[in-house]
Amino acid sequence: MSQRIHKIDFPVEKARKYLEPGPVVLLSSEFEGHSDIMTLGWHTILEFSPSLVGCMISGMNHSHELIRNSGQCVINVPTVELTDVVVAIGNSHGDKLDKFAAFHLTAEPASKVNAPLIGECFASFECQLYDDSMVDNYNLFIFEIVKAHVAEKPEFPATLHYTGEGRFTVMSEKVLDQSRDFKPEMLI
Amino acid sequence: MSQRIHKIDFPVEKARKYLEPGPVVLLSSEFEGHSDIMTLGWHTILEFSPSLVGCMISGMNHSHELIRNSGQCVINVPTVELTDVVVAIGNSHGDKLDKFAAFHLTAEPASKVNAPLIGECFASFECQLYDDSMVDNYNLFIFEIVKAHVAEKPEFPATLHYTGEGRFTVMSEKVLDQSRDFKPEMLI
Repeated sequence: MSQRIHKIDFPVEKARKYLEPGPVVLLSSEFEGHSDIMTLGWHTILEFSPSLVGCMISGMNHSHELIRNSGQCVINVPTVELTDVVVAIGNSHGDKLDKFAAFHLTAEPASKVNAPLIGECFASFECQLYDDSMVDNYNLFIFEIVKAHVAEKPEFPATLHYTGEGRFTVMSEKVLDQSRDFKPEMLI
Repeated sequence: MSQRIHKIDFPVEKARKYLEPGPVVLLSSEFEGHSDIMTLGWHTILEFSPSLVGCMISGMNHSHELIRNSGQCVINVPTVELTDVVVAIGNSHGDKLDKFAAFHLTAEPASKVNAPLIGECFASFECQLYDDSMVDNYNLFIFEIVKAHVAEKPEFPATLHYTGEGRFTVMSEKVLDQSRDFKPEMLI
């Protein structure tokens, strides 16, 4: 079983630090007392401030309905220690299953949304639906990240990145600091 | 100077294998004889077939104009060997600079679009603009990948992933094959 990870407040406009590298994330959601968790690999940062992120949430997921009805979710970033949980969640359906209980995950209260944080994840971003105009055509939800929680260490965790066909790559610990070659105005 | 990489045809509906993990990419574009290259970290797969990808291309980039006018681009995936080139391209502006010449990159002809492939990249995805309805509000272009070219080896390259503030993480060689724990219908 995985451990809960203590997280501290993180600036919402810097959420890209953990989402732009493209990890598989776990979306948690809640509506009228029913919660769900789904895996998601199709997401992109769209703006720094407001802190916007686009998520393609297929209508086949029970979470789609909960998020559409509540207008909220939490984007949680798991690390390699949670691989089995990520796979199990991605291969289960939440309409009759309590995924927090089934996969021994801790639902922690968020501060600005009703959807729960996942205690065992490295980072959690509380999201409010910002624009649903692309949901009908593409299942693309645009969220504003309204509160961010990130573990203090390590600065760059071993995240999972999905490549299809049941296979994940893992982010290395290698960090290339190229900031000396950046124009000052590009260092955001 | 980097080497050109021989690439072979790859199924467009499987482009997610190389884009979903979230690498920094180089967008190449061309309009009326003028070409440009830009770095991009804000992209997401949106559909398998048609093979759709959303790219947030800021209006500050010269490429924005070329892509809007031509309705085409190529999404090229660089590896860690091209770090210096990626940084240099991200910190230059293409309105008066020939980036292919300046950064010693090879413009190779695409087969279905006018924008050139970048010979030194691991993979190149030829794109046709599919939906521009989100460009005015979010600079979000939805492209259809109409032709894909990928190197034969390695299957999983050391891609660069941008975290902001001039720092990149690097994808490891570690591949976790969890396919035995997937439902057959989820193995796409």
